[in-house]
Amino acid sequence: MSEHELLTLQSAHIQELQRRYERALADHGYDSVLIASGAAPYRYRDDQTYVFQGFGPFLHWTGLAGQEHSWLLIRPGHKPVLWLFQPVDFWHASPDLPAEPWQEAMEVRSRQQAGAPELANTGRLAVLGDPQVLEGVPGDHNPSALVAATEETRVHKTCYEIECLAHANRVALKGHKAAREAFLAGGSEFGISLAYQQATGQREALAPYHSIIGLNEHAGTLHYQYYEGQVPRQHRSLLIDAGVRYRGYCSDITRTVAAPGEPRFAALVHGLEQLQLRLCEMVVPGMDYVEIHRKTHQGIAALLSASGLVTGLSDDAMVAQGITRAFFPHGIGHFLGIQVHDVAGKPTPPPEDAPFLRLTRTLEDGMVVTIEPGLYFIPSLLGPMLAGPQRRYLAEDLINDLKGCGGIRIEDNVAVTASGARNLTRELA
Amino acid sequence: MSEHELLTLQSAHIQELQRRYERALADHGYDSVLIASGAAPYRYRDDQTYVFQGFGPFLHWTGLAGQEHSWLLIRPGHKPVLWLFQPVDFWHASPDLPAEPWQEAMEVRSRQQAGAPELANTGRLAVLGDPQVLEGVPGDHNPSALVAATEETRVHKTCYEIECLAHANRVALKGHKAAREAFLAGGSEFGISLAYQQATGQREALAPYHSIIGLNEHAGTLHYQYYEGQVPRQHRSLLIDAGVRYRGYCSDITRTVAAPGEPRFAALVHGLEQLQLRLCEMVVPGMDYVEIHRKTHQGIAALLSASGLVTGLSDDAMVAQGITRAFFPHGIGHFLGIQVHDVAGKPTPPPEDAPFLRLTRTLEDGMVVTIEPGLYFIPSLLGPMLAGPQRRYLAEDLINDLKGCGGIRIEDNVAVTASGARNLTRELA
Repeated sequence: MSEHELLTLQSAHIQELQRRYERALADHGYDSVLIASGAAPYRYRDDQTYVFQGFGPFLHWTGLAGQEHSWLLIRPGHKPVLWLFQPVDFWHASPDLPAEPWQEAMEVRSRQQAGAPELANTGRLAVLGDPQVLEGVPGDHNPSALVAATEETRVHKTCYEIECLAHANRVALKGHKAAREAFLAGGSEFGISLAYQQATGQREALAPYHSIIGLNEHAGTLHYQYYEGQVPRQHRSLLIDAGVRYRGYCSDITRTVAAPGEPRFAALVHGLEQLQLRLCEMVVPGMDYVEIHRKTHQGIAALLSASGLVTGLSDDAMVAQGITRAFFPHGIGHFLGIQVHDVAGKPTPPPEDAPFLRLTRTLEDGMVVTIEPGLYFIPSLLGPMLAGPQRRYLAEDLINDLKGCGGIRIEDNVAVTASGARNLTRELA
Repeated sequence: MSEHELLTLQSAHIQELQRRYERALADHGYDSVLIASGAAPYRYRDDQTYVFQGFGPFLHWTGLAGQEHSWLLIRPGHKPVLWLFQPVDFWHASPDLPAEPWQEAMEVRSRQQAGAPELANTGRLAVLGDPQVLEGVPGDHNPSALVAATEETRVHKTCYEIECLAHANRVALKGHKAAREAFLAGGSEFGISLAYQQATGQREALAPYHSIIGLNEHAGTLHYQYYEGQVPRQHRSLLIDAGVRYRGYCSDITRTVAAPGEPRFAALVHGLEQLQLRLCEMVVPGMDYVEIHRKTHQGIAALLSASGLVTGLSDDAMVAQGITRAFFPHGIGHFLGIQVHDVAGKPTPPPEDAPFLRLTRTLEDGMVVTIEPGLYFIPSLLGPMLAGPQRRYLAEDLINDLKGCGGIRIEDNVAVTASGARNLTRELA
């Protein structure tokens, strides 16, 4: 898709949001809503701030990540009004926005002050935003029913949003390719993180979430949060979970690479990838997402059996006894959009057998989800099993060897369509 | 200094802090103080957090940056008790601390829970920390007189702290060298930022402050906050203001590089560096820091005159008429320590002629300050002068040409000693 086509879609996206917001305002008795972009909080008793990225509803309309102290007014029957904070300030750069068609769909005003604009004739006004920037602003702040309704407007992505997510995938895949090459060339976690930044052109501070880059046993810590600067004595495995943000929209992709001397681990990676592709095929309208999670456990059981990691137990028994949970302790995925774990995924809490599942809805056209099965060798989960009665089913030597590879996760971003799905992460393959 | 010597100094540092805290507690009527390390706040209506670095008083005692949900109890006559949050958690890594002598000077306990430990026999208890993590914790939260007294304990650095700051300088200088080379090799701002990370081994997210890397006119935005990925058509200048954190302590160094084809700008850089070195020599016990700021304006005036940027006015008249302020609008520097703009620098507000000055104290042995004069070509400051009666003193063509180089800042970190000063940034030269 050309940039021109994308920008045309954005104007249609704004029109669609206008319709959705008009309905939400009418349903909840408001005449207008003011959205605050927000601002970076200060570190406690320090004059340094955290790094700002953006507030979901503001990004949903504008895509302008990193734009602090700006405000957007939505009223039925009127163009949205966007006040951009662009002070004349020799401390910070306030670059001009590139001229793009969406600015025709809004009334864009430049503003020197950080606080909310003074409004007249708003009728009953709601205000959405981080309470830290709303002090003294008239109107109802974050009324919960309207918050829920506006978050629901983010669940079914417009064509524009799907294309942004697809683009965020294409850029992140360049990073994943570079990371794989840096791993095979013997890099450290830190070196691989630089290779990822270089290939995506995205600074660490602006990534939509912390890029997880784990070598060897570090791949077994689900949200491993460090980048070791030392090159390990041996390179056995790489797990990288990293995305980029494009026009506000996130990709969230995980790949696992086995080093050339690791045929057993490589076979498991291959097996998990085959499972992951089958699970992606389950993404169709009408599918209960919890079912995909449950099917994952059956697939993990089959893989544990086929690989000889677990023997003497049926797949169903492995799931029933919680053995698959010890190897795959997290949920199969979540909504994806402006936030990496996008909003409105859990109108009902997750079932008991999937406590960490972040999405419990039936899939519908326009939803975008991740599909991210994993298989890990986590000492704190496998240790108790190896010390108990289930020990006889487990291939302890094999498990102990594979602990040094940490684990596997393979994650794609999949958009539900009217008749099936579009895997945004595999379109280049 | 060997690592062994540094670690020995750390034990003495803790003993000195114990003495200072005992006095502060006695002065303000407390029997004990509990310090919370804090935790990263969540982004509003998101499940992603900001990147945590640490809370000053906790780092002052422990140096453990990034250690969330940990607690430290100080009582007169007792070893400090440190509760480290080290959950058995398959989501995050909780690496063991390397065994170091300071752990002998404290009672270190591992803890699974994030909340405050239950305490007995604390007497009158004060609690210091981000209010976000203090809900329900008994004791007086952040009593202002004690907060001020404990911040004052950070003003006079111990030998250990000076050595940490010196080390943070040495590491950052490797990054500055790499940045300079990347600039001369024609890199983009983003590429230079990667070179800085690579050479320092420090991730962007863990830098003590946002590294400012500006090419050409971007060097004229004081806190320029972007890294342009495009290589500019021409490389005229680089301004890089970047540090590292080492055992909690920050360096904060700025260098400006003129490209080979910029002799006029290079001469100004040289002139400003000569001024900067003279200002560093003013760092001695008993010197009013505001005087160094004022002397900077006289030096800038002399440089403006010598370079022909301003003609027909005496140096004093240039300062009196605010012309030097237009070229050098910020303060000459600040305290440096665990925070890049370290605490307790402004017991009195800055004078009218230096509104942005972050340090208004008389220098004493153990204080560590930055000395960072600048000379910029900032359109929003020079434009009004060029449109008014001062125009006749200004070499407009020269200024307009140099706008394309943005500006110059040269910043060192200087420790006040009993008899003079130690420039921590120039010890390798």
